[in-house]
Amino acid sequence: MPCNSEDFPVPCDRCMDKLPEGETPEGEKTNAEVKSCCYVRYPDGAVRLRNPNIELMDQDILYHLALGSGSHDLQQMFGDVKFVCMGGTPKRMEQFANFIMDEIGYKLPAGTTLLDISQYSYRYSMYKVGPVLSISHGMGIPSVGILLHEVIKLMYHARVKDPVFFRLGTCGGIGLDGGQLVITDEAVDGMMRPFLELPVLGQLVQRPSKLDTELAKELQSLSTQDDPFETHVGRTMCTYDFYEGQGRLDGAFCDYTEKEKLEFLHKVHDNNILNMEMESLAFAALTHHAGIRAAVICVTLLNRLNGDQVASSKEVLNEWQNRPQAIVARYIKKHMGMTGPAPRPPPPGPKTVVNSKKLKFVREESQSYE
Amino acid sequence: MPCNSEDFPVPCDRCMDKLPEGETPEGEKTNAEVKSCCYVRYPDGAVRLRNPNIELMDQDILYHLALGSGSHDLQQMFGDVKFVCMGGTPKRMEQFANFIMDEIGYKLPAGTTLLDISQYSYRYSMYKVGPVLSISHGMGIPSVGILLHEVIKLMYHARVKDPVFFRLGTCGGIGLDGGQLVITDEAVDGMMRPFLELPVLGQLVQRPSKLDTELAKELQSLSTQDDPFETHVGRTMCTYDFYEGQGRLDGAFCDYTEKEKLEFLHKVHDNNILNMEMESLAFAALTHHAGIRAAVICVTLLNRLNGDQVASSKEVLNEWQNRPQAIVARYIKKHMGMTGPAPRPPPPGPKTVVNSKKLKFVREESQSYE
Repeated sequence: MPCNSEDFPVPCDRCMDKLPEGETPEGEKTNAEVKSCCYVRYPDGAVRLRNPNIELMDQDILYHLALGSGSHDLQQMFGDVKFVCMGGTPKRMEQFANFIMDEIGYKLPAGTTLLDISQYSYRYSMYKVGPVLSISHGMGIPSVGILLHEVIKLMYHARVKDPVFFRLGTCGGIGLDGGQLVITDEAVDGMMRPFLELPVLGQLVQRPSKLDTELAKELQSLSTQDDPFETHVGRTMCTYDFYEGQGRLDGAFCDYTEKEKLEFLHKVHDNNILNMEMESLAFAALTHHAGIRAAVICVTLLNRLNGDQVASSKEVLNEWQNRPQAIVARYIKKHMGMTGPAPRPPPPGPKTVVNSKKLKFVREESQSYE
Repeated sequence: MPCNSEDFPVPCDRCMDKLPEGETPEGEKTNAEVKSCCYVRYPDGAVRLRNPNIELMDQDILYHLALGSGSHDLQQMFGDVKFVCMGGTPKRMEQFANFIMDEIGYKLPAGTTLLDISQYSYRYSMYKVGPVLSISHGMGIPSVGILLHEVIKLMYHARVKDPVFFRLGTCGGIGLDGGQLVITDEAVDGMMRPFLELPVLGQLVQRPSKLDTELAKELQSLSTQDDPFETHVGRTMCTYDFYEGQGRLDGAFCDYTEKEKLEFLHKVHDNNILNMEMESLAFAALTHHAGIRAAVICVTLLNRLNGDQVASSKEVLNEWQNRPQAIVARYIKKHMGMTGPAPRPPPPGPKTVVNSKKLKFVREESQSYE
């Protein structure tokens, strides 16, 4: 249900989740008086930060993206974003940017090409194709977590309204053969706990790792009978380690037997967990906390109940990795109302760098952080 | 103390740490009968894996490095490695490879240049300069953890003897101004616990995150009075998040006040923690578990007790980031006995790819994993 629901004054799902009963945000009207989410949206649907400090800062540097609110006109650059797509490697996300450009028929002006917007960060790569951002997030929860903090702030600075975030990835299937799609409705950690636990100022904070159920179902519905794969919705186990953390036998260390490994994987399977990967817990927890609709859609590379080694050919694996992209492309096209002509880029607008001195400073700072 | 200590039959520190009192490894002689580390070294000092499965495998694919034991002659490629240096970004580690090449006077044959050995993984970058490996590890514990599993296995396959691992990084200083060096003797997590906690088959496993004290002291001793920086040895806090995890006020979320943040940072300082970063816990725990001597040496970019923003110029920051590299270069040169002429690369040897079909398979598998 959108934030500016016509069902007012009943608050939307997101509000219900954020606002403890009987409580109103400081300085805000009560739910009965406002027509928008309390913590996570402005009345026009623009992303609102759960951090009062940012709007008081002279400039906010997005260190790991090599962008800044004082150096760049972020609203002019990113204000039209609707879909934020993330995946592991720079190469794959550059490929997705080119794929979605074809899919939505976005035409670049002659003599131009896609640019890695975050090239000066030397960490993440970011491409923009009209309303679509395609960003690499690296491996693991900390890497995707840093990126999400900065992309959520980017949404705020750019005044993006109701963006949808996707993670497109690969995973090990649990009871599913290679090539199948899993859309996550809830991420769990290696102890099967449905939240991200993080020490903050020496105290453990737990954030629910829920994903948008309606969005997951809608994505599943975009899979057709003609697709050469099944599309499942279910739980995903997200681990901090690829080898021991996922019960593999082929890491540098292994203190368990194959029998113990299989007992564990079957227990995981019995708990309705369909796959394992390494980013969904943070992706779910941070987007949920920010009130941003999000989905994790991964293709299985193998059935971990049958082994640890991927045995398929490059051609097959490449085709499999296109499957999450295909479903997300269908979603994007549907929500762009693509029955009419394909969108063209706007004519060249005002320059996006608003302060060259600050830009130099942002690039320098960005290069210093790990 | 080296593994093949002359103080036999007293086992070395490493053995003492690994072997519970009165216990001997299965199928092994007792400590009184052998003259080498029990779990982590072969008698000749070569790295031994704490995983009995690897030597039984037809081939071991190092997925995230795009290398394999069946496709490459890893001993011929990497058998001479002595020093494994890791840092965050591909760019910085390429730069370190070129820096160390100058420092040790390693001459490439005419018409050749350094190659990113792991270019087909699209994740980590790896450069080799004689006995030195220079590898990027990405951001966060999971990313450096995957790399360490595969590099430790690489040491085993290449029969490398007594390698030393270094992490060269940047950090926030706690009570130290920008530009100072911190060599970690113990890493702690965000709850100040001195171990890496990881779910393995649904059980929490804790691994001590100790680093080699002698190595830390030796590195510190290589810093001279003429250096324009101080070199400290102390504890490092390693977090899973850059923003809330390190008490920053400028993330997408912030539920605490500046006063609470400073109380936390002062408490960290009072616990003899000198700096904060995001990889040392896994780096220390995994190298310690593998019986590999290791050091984490980071330069502070700012004093977090004074703020969150880096305010120094690019020139200053670049010079600072060379400081960990300079100390490690001194160590490498000292242990290469570099008082004589600089080493030259060996003449072209037998080809390193031993099985082209398997090589193709390794590259394909590597590209599929995240």
